[in-house]
Amino acid sequence: MNENYVVTVDALADFCTKLFQAYGANYEKAKDFSESLVKTELRGIKSHGVVRIKNYIDRMKAGTITLNSSSKIIKETPTTALIDGNNGLGMVISKEAVRLARRKAEESGVGIVSVRNSNHFGAAGIWGEELAGNNMIGICATNSEPIVSAPVGKTRALGSNPFSIAVPANKYPTVNLDISNGVMALGKIYEYRRLGKEFPEGSWLDKEGTPTTNPHANEVAEFIMRPFGMHKGFGITVMMEILTAILADGAFGPEIPSVYRDIDKPNPISHFFMAIKIECFRDLHDFTSKVDTLIEYLHSLPVQEEGKRVLYPGEIEAKVSEQNDKNGIILSEEVVKELLDMANLGGMEISDSPFEVAPNNIVINSQI
Amino acid sequence: MNENYVVTVDALADFCTKLFQAYGANYEKAKDFSESLVKTELRGIKSHGVVRIKNYIDRMKAGTITLNSSSKIIKETPTTALIDGNNGLGMVISKEAVRLARRKAEESGVGIVSVRNSNHFGAAGIWGEELAGNNMIGICATNSEPIVSAPVGKTRALGSNPFSIAVPANKYPTVNLDISNGVMALGKIYEYRRLGKEFPEGSWLDKEGTPTTNPHANEVAEFIMRPFGMHKGFGITVMMEILTAILADGAFGPEIPSVYRDIDKPNPISHFFMAIKIECFRDLHDFTSKVDTLIEYLHSLPVQEEGKRVLYPGEIEAKVSEQNDKNGIILSEEVVKELLDMANLGGMEISDSPFEVAPNNIVINSQI
Repeated sequence: MNENYVVTVDALADFCTKLFQAYGANYEKAKDFSESLVKTELRGIKSHGVVRIKNYIDRMKAGTITLNSSSKIIKETPTTALIDGNNGLGMVISKEAVRLARRKAEESGVGIVSVRNSNHFGAAGIWGEELAGNNMIGICATNSEPIVSAPVGKTRALGSNPFSIAVPANKYPTVNLDISNGVMALGKIYEYRRLGKEFPEGSWLDKEGTPTTNPHANEVAEFIMRPFGMHKGFGITVMMEILTAILADGAFGPEIPSVYRDIDKPNPISHFFMAIKIECFRDLHDFTSKVDTLIEYLHSLPVQEEGKRVLYPGEIEAKVSEQNDKNGIILSEEVVKELLDMANLGGMEISDSPFEVAPNNIVINSQI
Repeated sequence: MNENYVVTVDALADFCTKLFQAYGANYEKAKDFSESLVKTELRGIKSHGVVRIKNYIDRMKAGTITLNSSSKIIKETPTTALIDGNNGLGMVISKEAVRLARRKAEESGVGIVSVRNSNHFGAAGIWGEELAGNNMIGICATNSEPIVSAPVGKTRALGSNPFSIAVPANKYPTVNLDISNGVMALGKIYEYRRLGKEFPEGSWLDKEGTPTTNPHANEVAEFIMRPFGMHKGFGITVMMEILTAILADGAFGPEIPSVYRDIDKPNPISHFFMAIKIECFRDLHDFTSKVDTLIEYLHSLPVQEEGKRVLYPGEIEAKVSEQNDKNGIILSEEVVKELLDMANLGGMEISDSPFEVAPNNIVINSQI
């Protein structure tokens, strides 16, 4: 039987920093990258966390991520900037872009930073939250390679283009909507297979473009995702494509190679970051207190099933973060083996492995 | 059998202007109001068009819309403004707010105008489009009285909080996503009844909060709407509530009386308007041309059924606008009778009725 492992947040961040250094990243970039990756993992967004390190390293080895390149500001006004990420690490580029958007909002009320030629930036929610901090509204989005079909379509049309809208509360963790525009992530297909369940009606097309509820209809990577809420979710994905790639003069949908299959090609995606200073509109404490009121109102609502509760966007991720911060992050044996293999191959020195076998009763949450 | 009527756009706008004047609106406000209302009708968003005039007039008579009040700027910076609508006509307030947001974006790259104490502003899409014009990205949202339940909830939690994101293309009409966060509008229940169809699974709760597919489960007004895409659509509605009411220090969800049932109480809703100047990021013509490329890409995609086509957000509304502009707007006998009754009661002089019986083959499109 497979075992799970547990690792503290700091130890995982430290391990990842050293790993990226072993593959050629300089210390600053490796540290920023690793911190954002661990933050994604901390929030329980495992599909965008440590599990993706292999892909990053494959790209570092293939030279299709330019490890120590610097972003360049192409165009700038007091409220806006266009940045070319020069194919650097998406999380490093995003961290700089977020800092710039917040500085502009601090000075001018609003800051918008548009980014092209970046790479995968982890979960949108970590940037929404950084943009928001404790005094702003943060909005961000990214485009990605095509995976979602149009409602009447039968092929992958555009990316699932995740976005986040985040605002600070007073007594509660940040309200943070962090969603993509597909019915569900590709990775969940493995869960349906494992549990022997059929897909819900209308969630996937097979590789020929025919609606299917059979998780074994073809290879996982070949399924075509439907947009959530059909024309509504697809409409949002179209607008996010425009807000990211078209505003930034970056590659749009069909121009983007596959992040997993086309390791030999750059994956030039675009992002959108916006910060809005709350105090331009009303007293900050009044705002965050009213967000508390909204949260408490949601918590007070009658529910369908006893024991459930209406949650606010980001509430689960905040709770998981707190737990992971306290108890450590749980990783599967497979992921830990992959990390250690990459460390060995890269010639990274490991005196003590930071990964400990987790107690038997600890499981990684099912994603269905 | 009921007959349909046809009226030209200009004649309808003129009729409505005179009607609002008859009930006490000054010429300028009546004209702005009427133009926005007809623009909504023109786009085929009939649920937010002429059919709502009776509610506006009931409120004018009850004194719960302050007809000739002026909006007041409460707080302002070069990029932002907070406006109190003083319970005036939502469309008149919105027109001013949009103008202000665009002026700020013209001068500073971005303009955000937050509005409280407004009233119903028609379809979000008409403001998205005005914000965008031919050189900006327009984003707007409104809150509304609670109608949408939380995914696990069994009561009306928050409004369906419609929003619009609009951007200009070059050769094509504006790309304009204009959606609310419910599975479908309340008015569509009448269509299900008329056609003898069941609701799709998961779209409505009955008045007790139990999921139902029966359009006769209770009175139409008592149904509880589910959010589109469940937790995703609900999350968007929560964020729109914050971007509108909480940012503007306006009334939030449960504080808003019913626009139809509580005629004797104001309906103090809030809006959010944002304009982003495209030229701050890239050449405008390059941007709009790339939007054309995206549109043509969508049109070229393979589809499930022959004869269908992947449409871009706002494409149907643009087509309907063009047709209505050419052939006139079709109104049901019931709506025309209501308009003429209100005109008579208000003492408005009608020399010639602008409504003509429509040819037999013209029907109002079914909304299912």
